[in-house]
Amino acid sequence: MKSFIEVSPDSHFPIENLPYGVFSTPDNKTPRIGVAIGDLILDLSVVCHLFTGPLLKTQQHVFEQKNLNMFMALGRCAWSEARTTLQQLLSQDNPCLRDDAQLRARALVPQNSATMHLPAEIGDYTDFYSSLDHATNVGTMFRGRENALMPNWKYLPVGYHGRASSLVVSGTPIRRPNGQTRPKDDEPPTFGPCRLMDFELEMAFFVGPGNTLGHPISIKDAENHIFGMVLMNDWSARDIQKWEYVPLGPFLAKNLGTTISPWVVTMDALKPFLVDNFPQDPVPFPYLAHNDKYNFDIRLEVAIRSEGSEKASTVCKSNFRYMYWTMKQQLAHHTITGCNTRPGDLLASGTISGPSEESFGSMLELSWRGSKTVDIGGGATRKFLQDGDEVIMTAFCEGDGYKVGFGACTGKVLPAHPLQ
Amino acid sequence: MKSFIEVSPDSHFPIENLPYGVFSTPDNKTPRIGVAIGDLILDLSVVCHLFTGPLLKTQQHVFEQKNLNMFMALGRCAWSEARTTLQQLLSQDNPCLRDDAQLRARALVPQNSATMHLPAEIGDYTDFYSSLDHATNVGTMFRGRENALMPNWKYLPVGYHGRASSLVVSGTPIRRPNGQTRPKDDEPPTFGPCRLMDFELEMAFFVGPGNTLGHPISIKDAENHIFGMVLMNDWSARDIQKWEYVPLGPFLAKNLGTTISPWVVTMDALKPFLVDNFPQDPVPFPYLAHNDKYNFDIRLEVAIRSEGSEKASTVCKSNFRYMYWTMKQQLAHHTITGCNTRPGDLLASGTISGPSEESFGSMLELSWRGSKTVDIGGGATRKFLQDGDEVIMTAFCEGDGYKVGFGACTGKVLPAHPLQ
Repeated sequence: MKSFIEVSPDSHFPIENLPYGVFSTPDNKTPRIGVAIGDLILDLSVVCHLFTGPLLKTQQHVFEQKNLNMFMALGRCAWSEARTTLQQLLSQDNPCLRDDAQLRARALVPQNSATMHLPAEIGDYTDFYSSLDHATNVGTMFRGRENALMPNWKYLPVGYHGRASSLVVSGTPIRRPNGQTRPKDDEPPTFGPCRLMDFELEMAFFVGPGNTLGHPISIKDAENHIFGMVLMNDWSARDIQKWEYVPLGPFLAKNLGTTISPWVVTMDALKPFLVDNFPQDPVPFPYLAHNDKYNFDIRLEVAIRSEGSEKASTVCKSNFRYMYWTMKQQLAHHTITGCNTRPGDLLASGTISGPSEESFGSMLELSWRGSKTVDIGGGATRKFLQDGDEVIMTAFCEGDGYKVGFGACTGKVLPAHPLQ
Repeated sequence: MKSFIEVSPDSHFPIENLPYGVFSTPDNKTPRIGVAIGDLILDLSVVCHLFTGPLLKTQQHVFEQKNLNMFMALGRCAWSEARTTLQQLLSQDNPCLRDDAQLRARALVPQNSATMHLPAEIGDYTDFYSSLDHATNVGTMFRGRENALMPNWKYLPVGYHGRASSLVVSGTPIRRPNGQTRPKDDEPPTFGPCRLMDFELEMAFFVGPGNTLGHPISIKDAENHIFGMVLMNDWSARDIQKWEYVPLGPFLAKNLGTTISPWVVTMDALKPFLVDNFPQDPVPFPYLAHNDKYNFDIRLEVAIRSEGSEKASTVCKSNFRYMYWTMKQQLAHHTITGCNTRPGDLLASGTISGPSEESFGSMLELSWRGSKTVDIGGGATRKFLQDGDEVIMTAFCEGDGYKVGFGACTGKVLPAHPLQ
């Protein structure tokens, strides 16, 4: 499969990928839906009349929206038809767009001239905690190796409700928060700038069709409700979290901003990268049990570029395949008590750490709670993030001569507001 | 102040109240904004042209929406102007509506012919834990009296993010969930219907104008962001909660459904019922400190009607004034790390229990973790809720010859789905 649009072998966005995003341009500020191909964006609002398959010919308006929610709501058969249409349209053998200079001029936009927006209106955002190594690392630091994992961890995908309003798109700066912390356990808390600012390397998936309140999504049906995935940085104020989180969970330490990558990679594009599920013991309850593969080989990397540096330095290399619980299990669990989901809801993995030290997905783990330093190049080191640090996450799957990638998820730490 | 519309002294909706809601009728299924007056609803979509004050004459379209979000976004001066306009329009001295039989016929709808809807599109929902007696009761049951309150509880309003999608309006039945529980601490968990189904007596407020990410709402400004209040039943599956909630907080035990009353009582209507704030020791950090009163004398009641019973039996009499943290403090805290809020966001109080046993706001406390029974009339007793039980919450402020009330917040427990 090859496109008439030139795509370098290193590009995250060959014709095998075709992720969806929402963008605007300097001369057209209206956010609209596009598909990444090489260094370009195909503007779907311009070519929506070309979706003439049996399902989409009456649904072309979904590509004229300001977000992907209506398209997400259509379900798997429509997503698959859209992918086929797009691959044909961009194929080197198809003259329709290739040979129509006028249409090409209107429909293809350089990515570097576009501003990306959140791909969907996100009604609810949930964050899981599904990497065994991450949960074990954090548990070990705070409770010792014997009590590292809570008794519930291997029975259910532990998760919690996050803040939807503070989800932002890659590139948005994040301000270091002021808040309450208790630096010494036997003294009263203090108020001031967060000292232990951290990233969390995560991925997240968007819900397609939703379910109604009181009617769980079965594990068999879960795949039909999963639209696609993004990279995520779940910024965390560790010292604020430590003081606030018992007994109701993380709150202000997490709602200061959560960054996602702009391009949603579809499950169809990820299918070639299916790998065995993580072995689960004990055997999950039937409502969580599935035997088909739903784990993915997605290479993850985190780099930090300090203020004024030209070069970012890699601090973590992880992989999505380290996930203990699958996305299907997360969705089935999320709805088992009757919780309803809606198109555009976002469910995140939790920090993705692997077994080796270089795969740890947070500064908390990389610096082992600040007990050692992490090299960020040019002689500089970090235990946690400093003002001006830019965190750059990337992810891709390695195909045979091509990559299916997520692009980057970036954000820079701004200094805290001065205290009043 | 008196209306030309007859309002019985027991009504929750005299001209002093004028709460906002969203309703539809059998002959006009479009949800629209209304104001409760006596047994009627004033349809604001019909009278929006009468809002001719300086702020609202160019904003009449906010009353033609399907929810209150746009009106909420206008801010306190606009809310105040709307209240003045409505009180004049409904006053016994004003002929405008009173003597226009045609307009009256179109604008006034009997409440008992209307279907109520959620008053706003709720972007994010947060639940606090701000009643000292409730936190002490729950802490005592689970950790003993000495360790009842967590060290953070009196320093900050503990809260967590809830699930926005499963907020429903009064009258919506709630299905008993299936889920994982661990009945015996030394045995593996089991899967099946929740056995400890509970209500939580809460109130909640809607955010008016929001704030942008990274820019906290100061305690001084907080009042300008608080639109009005509703009653809330935060249904809780206690046994599911116990097994799942460590370390990230309650999740599935709460997202099975959360019920709010349909009428939003404005802060202007509640002003006459201001009372002293709860004494706070230690003195809060400056970002949480305010000296003006922002606590309210709102009488709360919970009754249970079992399946087939004609009469509901009161099981709890509490009061909003038992809240330790004020709504201004909750909002200032929520945004201190930079979290952005949006018009229509909902922030709930947590269970409101007082010092006396009859004021405990949940079955967990009333039955003291199931160690005693609660009389629900006709010889029947309960420790937790049974299928068919209807929970009826009511709230009102007692004025001089009138009530400012919230109406009812009701919901009936349906049996769990049979296991597959």
